[in-house]
Amino acid sequence: MRTGVTPGELVSDEAILAAVAAEAGWMEELLIRLVEAPTVLGAEEAGQTVMEEAFLGCGLETRSVRLDGRALRDAEGASPFTWDVEDKRNVVADWPTGDGAAGGGRSLILNGHIDVVPPAAEELWTHPPFRVVRDGDWMYGRGAGDMKAGLAAMTGAVRALVRAGYAPAADVQLQSVVEEECTGHGALQCLLDGARADGCVITEPHPDHITVAQVGVLWFHIDIAGVPAHAARASRLGFNAIDAAVEVLAALRRHEARLNEDPPPPFDAFEHPINLNPGMISGGDWPSTVAATCTLSSRIGLYPGQDPEEACAGVEAAVAEAVAASPRLAEHPPRVRYDGFSCEGSVVDKGEPLVQTLSGAYGRLHGERPAVEATTATTDARHFIRMGIPAVCFGPRGEGIHGIDERVSLRSVVESAQVLGLFVRDWCGLVPGRKE
Amino acid sequence: MRTGVTPGELVSDEAILAAVAAEAGWMEELLIRLVEAPTVLGAEEAGQTVMEEAFLGCGLETRSVRLDGRALRDAEGASPFTWDVEDKRNVVADWPTGDGAAGGGRSLILNGHIDVVPPAAEELWTHPPFRVVRDGDWMYGRGAGDMKAGLAAMTGAVRALVRAGYAPAADVQLQSVVEEECTGHGALQCLLDGARADGCVITEPHPDHITVAQVGVLWFHIDIAGVPAHAARASRLGFNAIDAAVEVLAALRRHEARLNEDPPPPFDAFEHPINLNPGMISGGDWPSTVAATCTLSSRIGLYPGQDPEEACAGVEAAVAEAVAASPRLAEHPPRVRYDGFSCEGSVVDKGEPLVQTLSGAYGRLHGERPAVEATTATTDARHFIRMGIPAVCFGPRGEGIHGIDERVSLRSVVESAQVLGLFVRDWCGLVPGRKE
Repeated sequence: MRTGVTPGELVSDEAILAAVAAEAGWMEELLIRLVEAPTVLGAEEAGQTVMEEAFLGCGLETRSVRLDGRALRDAEGASPFTWDVEDKRNVVADWPTGDGAAGGGRSLILNGHIDVVPPAAEELWTHPPFRVVRDGDWMYGRGAGDMKAGLAAMTGAVRALVRAGYAPAADVQLQSVVEEECTGHGALQCLLDGARADGCVITEPHPDHITVAQVGVLWFHIDIAGVPAHAARASRLGFNAIDAAVEVLAALRRHEARLNEDPPPPFDAFEHPINLNPGMISGGDWPSTVAATCTLSSRIGLYPGQDPEEACAGVEAAVAEAVAASPRLAEHPPRVRYDGFSCEGSVVDKGEPLVQTLSGAYGRLHGERPAVEATTATTDARHFIRMGIPAVCFGPRGEGIHGIDERVSLRSVVESAQVLGLFVRDWCGLVPGRKE
Repeated sequence: MRTGVTPGELVSDEAILAAVAAEAGWMEELLIRLVEAPTVLGAEEAGQTVMEEAFLGCGLETRSVRLDGRALRDAEGASPFTWDVEDKRNVVADWPTGDGAAGGGRSLILNGHIDVVPPAAEELWTHPPFRVVRDGDWMYGRGAGDMKAGLAAMTGAVRALVRAGYAPAADVQLQSVVEEECTGHGALQCLLDGARADGCVITEPHPDHITVAQVGVLWFHIDIAGVPAHAARASRLGFNAIDAAVEVLAALRRHEARLNEDPPPPFDAFEHPINLNPGMISGGDWPSTVAATCTLSSRIGLYPGQDPEEACAGVEAAVAEAVAASPRLAEHPPRVRYDGFSCEGSVVDKGEPLVQTLSGAYGRLHGERPAVEATTATTDARHFIRMGIPAVCFGPRGEGIHGIDERVSLRSVVESAQVLGLFVRDWCGLVPGRKE
């Protein structure tokens, strides 16, 4: 605390926990509306409209932070992208400081992303992925866990405090951002727009732990050319691009194995921290034609401290290894393209006040402190950290993230919101809200 | 010759060769129109309209033989199919016998297919695949060789004889059929419609040889299920359907190797007669999601005498081999579907009068007899052979069949038509055409 308001003085734990618990129904309703908005890449706006209404429902004013493709392309920490972003916006709400807050408390960004990954295979879901189904404590749907529950929790926590008559002693900004799942350019645009704070909590589905370190991620797309011919003469005249993709993938798997041989801390805690994922493949146009082309789109992790350029070089070396082993591949060298994530890993020190304060808030609700962990995924935290803003992830309990029958524990949504309520008090300070 | 007209008596070689050569420009014009009609599966009608006009331009009456999905599904020799065929037709022209033809000559079907395979990779073509480009003797375009040149040659041969005042001494039917590249159901429908003859020549791009034996072909589609998860946890939680497809393909390649170990005659003339072709692959929906599904569509050959059911069993055994070697695959056994070709191989005896007569006609133009060969592909010939009608393939010189920059030699189109003109005389007999 820099000055002024003493945390905990004005508001008791019990008052905060009760105020947030009273918003359980509101958070659940918000979550249903969010999940039923199928906010895959390019279709984020349906969810942003819901978030705009939710922020208004907290008594906050909202504004749009529109994505600016040109500014993003020039920005440090940006990833390459080939799609149009001009119609996209983040929705931001500034929660104004209250009476007697001058100079007091630490400012905060609460951040969540509205975009979701596609359903993976809709036919494998028990219920349609964008229709909410409840079963006891679980709510099912794509994005329920990752991370609309987090958006509902952070918004519910703020709403509870506002309705109880409190305001923060330092600026709090709520951000509902786009494109976390492919570039992080929603969060980056907020920073380009001037967002700054003493700390940032991203309410990703990281339950019962605070995430302080994350890998970087590289997306790469390999276009492989074959020599098409009639299948009847495949072995004499043709060179099948699908077979060639298998050779390239084998070389990439060898590269992945090498990267996992001796992980640096804190990633030595993982058996296999760097995951290569051949996420999409598409090749050929007729069963009786030797496949002329095959495109393999993959994701691979990189350790903090490693430049994404190095990761690109590693991928290209693996492809070159496949080419060196195959005269036919050498005749038509595969082309590596970058589109989407090309981002560094990041680490926040466990001793940071942000981590300690959030950990303490968690401990006051749960009786013990949460684990402090690393993740083998990336999150928008890196953009804040790059700007010198400590950022961690903490949020509700989701399962089936990027999988089938994704779900979130509704109790964990309320509990996450309660922890956030305590944390806002402890980090920012709470003062009486201004009378209009 | 059974009776009546003695072949060669009425018309000299020279007269036929000159009459057909005079149609070279007409054939080329027809071929341009045919190639520029992009008659891929489902879009055949644009080409059938051209063929209808071409048959009318020979002074023949035409009729449509519409595909009947229900009848085809029940027919012997049919392949499974999941698409709609009710709007498709073959275009047929009957060339009526002439004066004094009663009981004379042997009847004939001249058959070609209007459908073409897709361009494999349009961006690899020097010129757009459905825009004709001429370079010296070569005409470029998808379908130029396979087999619109054959349609032009057979039609040009008949037009030349009609315009010279001749008619056959036995029934001749010209057939422009659909779906040769996926089921052969166009040709099969003509047979269900009652088409019969003493022999059939299919003007496929089989230059300087007569094809008397062919493999069967099986198309099969393998749906492989993975366990999607976040790529960050791929190695712990996920099972990637693209990796699984690689395992299945490896087992299929081992199956293919076994099939090529000891080929029966006449396929022992080939180093590798049975080609497995993984022609199309599609899997996954997001680079950072472990692929939930992957579908591999392949083609494999089978030897004459082998039932397509056996080929299915062989494929399924190969898939089972992959499953047995992979506990993760065993949890989600791949599903094999059949859609498209499921057809037997076929053989015509080299001593058949049809082969000898066509060989003789070729020899009269070229000074030596053509090779008599087997092919590692299938053609519509099998449907005629199954009905007891000897059927062979012979036609123009095409290159890049099912490949890039497909082309056909225009001189070979004229020469093929000349051979067909001589052959019609020798097989059917020629008599004066009827005066209207």
